[in-house]
Amino acid sequence: MTPGPTPVPPEVLLAQASPMIHHRAPIYTEIILEVLEDLKYVFQTKNDIIMFASSGTGAMESAVANCFSAGDKVLVVSIGNFGARWAKISEAYGLNVTLLDYEWGTKADPADIEKALAADPDLKGVLVTHSETSTGVVNDIETMGAIVAKTPAIFIVDAISGLGASDMQTDNWNVDVCVAGSQKALMTPPGLAFASVSDKAWQAVETSTLPKFYFDYKKSRDALHKAEPQSPFTPAVSTILGLAVALKMIREETLENVFARHHVNAAATRAGVKALGLELFGTEDPNAHSVTAVKAPGDVDGQAIVKSLRVKYGITTAGGQGKIKGKIFRIGHCGYYDKFDILSLLAGLEMALVGLGHEVTAGAGVAAAEQVFEANS
Amino acid sequence: MTPGPTPVPPEVLLAQASPMIHHRAPIYTEIILEVLEDLKYVFQTKNDIIMFASSGTGAMESAVANCFSAGDKVLVVSIGNFGARWAKISEAYGLNVTLLDYEWGTKADPADIEKALAADPDLKGVLVTHSETSTGVVNDIETMGAIVAKTPAIFIVDAISGLGASDMQTDNWNVDVCVAGSQKALMTPPGLAFASVSDKAWQAVETSTLPKFYFDYKKSRDALHKAEPQSPFTPAVSTILGLAVALKMIREETLENVFARHHVNAAATRAGVKALGLELFGTEDPNAHSVTAVKAPGDVDGQAIVKSLRVKYGITTAGGQGKIKGKIFRIGHCGYYDKFDILSLLAGLEMALVGLGHEVTAGAGVAAAEQVFEANS
Repeated sequence: MTPGPTPVPPEVLLAQASPMIHHRAPIYTEIILEVLEDLKYVFQTKNDIIMFASSGTGAMESAVANCFSAGDKVLVVSIGNFGARWAKISEAYGLNVTLLDYEWGTKADPADIEKALAADPDLKGVLVTHSETSTGVVNDIETMGAIVAKTPAIFIVDAISGLGASDMQTDNWNVDVCVAGSQKALMTPPGLAFASVSDKAWQAVETSTLPKFYFDYKKSRDALHKAEPQSPFTPAVSTILGLAVALKMIREETLENVFARHHVNAAATRAGVKALGLELFGTEDPNAHSVTAVKAPGDVDGQAIVKSLRVKYGITTAGGQGKIKGKIFRIGHCGYYDKFDILSLLAGLEMALVGLGHEVTAGAGVAAAEQVFEANS
Repeated sequence: MTPGPTPVPPEVLLAQASPMIHHRAPIYTEIILEVLEDLKYVFQTKNDIIMFASSGTGAMESAVANCFSAGDKVLVVSIGNFGARWAKISEAYGLNVTLLDYEWGTKADPADIEKALAADPDLKGVLVTHSETSTGVVNDIETMGAIVAKTPAIFIVDAISGLGASDMQTDNWNVDVCVAGSQKALMTPPGLAFASVSDKAWQAVETSTLPKFYFDYKKSRDALHKAEPQSPFTPAVSTILGLAVALKMIREETLENVFARHHVNAAATRAGVKALGLELFGTEDPNAHSVTAVKAPGDVDGQAIVKSLRVKYGITTAGGQGKIKGKIFRIGHCGYYDKFDILSLLAGLEMALVGLGHEVTAGAGVAAAEQVFEANS
């Protein structure tokens, strides 16, 4: 129960174990076209989606390398570790970064973006995180998108841990490049990353002079729009076979129901944690469905809780990253989870806390979560 | 029987279907350390090996982006499509490329590299292909390495389709960056790429100013040399679980026996093809174990042979790439193949040729290959 890689359904694992197929054979073309259609459903977009054999960071880098040129001014909005990554990538490529840096645990204020864009009409892009994995907080992409759409800037969103868990309407919310990965709510092993590219972004791609080859959007688009659609380089075939099954599962459940299931799982987790007397880290947000960040109680280190859960109870959670390491622990509930996963986690947490000498009422967390599940059944 | 992705042993496919593990958990560290040790055995190197979730081209790009700076002069040695890719990547990164371009089907002459390096002491690197997938030809890396080692230039070798099939002694042959992928002789699905980095190459990395983030060698090295070795970004966990099994299979068979098996499979394929009256494309080379390129007979197009084999007989081979499309077809025998795969391919080829109206003595190809297998049993 980390924020990812997340558990993979057996159907997806078995699809991955299918015999290898050749990526220049017609059967591959059929599969990839269906996968890309299903991805568009999850991205809620009509735009082309570019797929890479890489982790999510590769697709983040692709957005920077394809949309900008050295020295371009960009606004990076950071509310945690992965927002900071946008700044690092942009700086690695020689962009001129204006950083809107918020305290970890808080949301970005769209009005600040509006002010920054008004103050500097040369800003060529706004880079932001949808669901910030390090803190569990989800940004208001809809409001931000409406603001950026009025300017010439490209709106680039890292939706790696949020897409398919919390609502993320790429087209309706004016997102020009939406980046995601296979290993979070898409319930597939890591190794695939995606970037949807709007018409406005394609115009930026045409003038970009930053060096790129493997992550070159134009190469991917040209291969995709051949009579027999292909990828420019050897794709991660097995992972794609798995993804194809996972996407069908999402379509069958429907995005609406997937979001609702995530919502209840997140609400039950938070109710359970609070019933154990623990405090949530950061702004509590009913739309944040991927991760619950919890403050470690004063008498126990966050890393010790993670270790006890793993070693004594076989439950993998995550500690804090960067400057909040030890102060929090994080429970992932993004992807293939149902109520008994949440209840097991809370039971394990109760036992771990007792074992670490922290006083809790055993059963109180589970009971509170049960109430949430019953109220939503 | 394409030059890749190659067939994956069931043991490897099943390992891929194992439940997901978290890449920051101790169990992952154990696995990755063993995988990296086993990779060093296959690379025949003591150098660090950097692993990426990407296809082989990503690792090729990593070598360029990490070893050079804009405007650096490099010598690209091309004997086919993948040699040409070195030039394209180098040019995308603003390097100043001197191209040694050989006719497709021939080998590069190491003496030409010696001359080029003597003529221009500013050359910062030599980029070459080990096994050229588009033509089946293998370059003389050993002689080239001895020449480049006497200069300050970095010797970078694309061994994607050759590593684990034909001998490739990274350290003994003075290869500074050796690039490989999971989906060829390593018998694993595509999605992982590797680069071994020598001390000489690390010195170049220190002064390189080209932009990079996802493919940054220093980030990978720093993560790898932590107390609990990690990767900087989410690794392709399932593919790594598969690779771990494939590498154990190679160690058990031993590299020597793996090369010998490839040698006999290649020799039998070529004997069979010739017994059918077909001509090999390019220089025949007893060390070229990955691919056999065959000239299409005058009365049949190469693509038609590939299509007939696929549609009528369920055997996937590859056509010609680029300027020799239609003129040749390619049989891959790199990786998880044994004699009956080769014999089946030759039987299929006999039937396909007859079906396409080309006169052959049915059984002659299979018989010639049987003789090679018997002589080597």
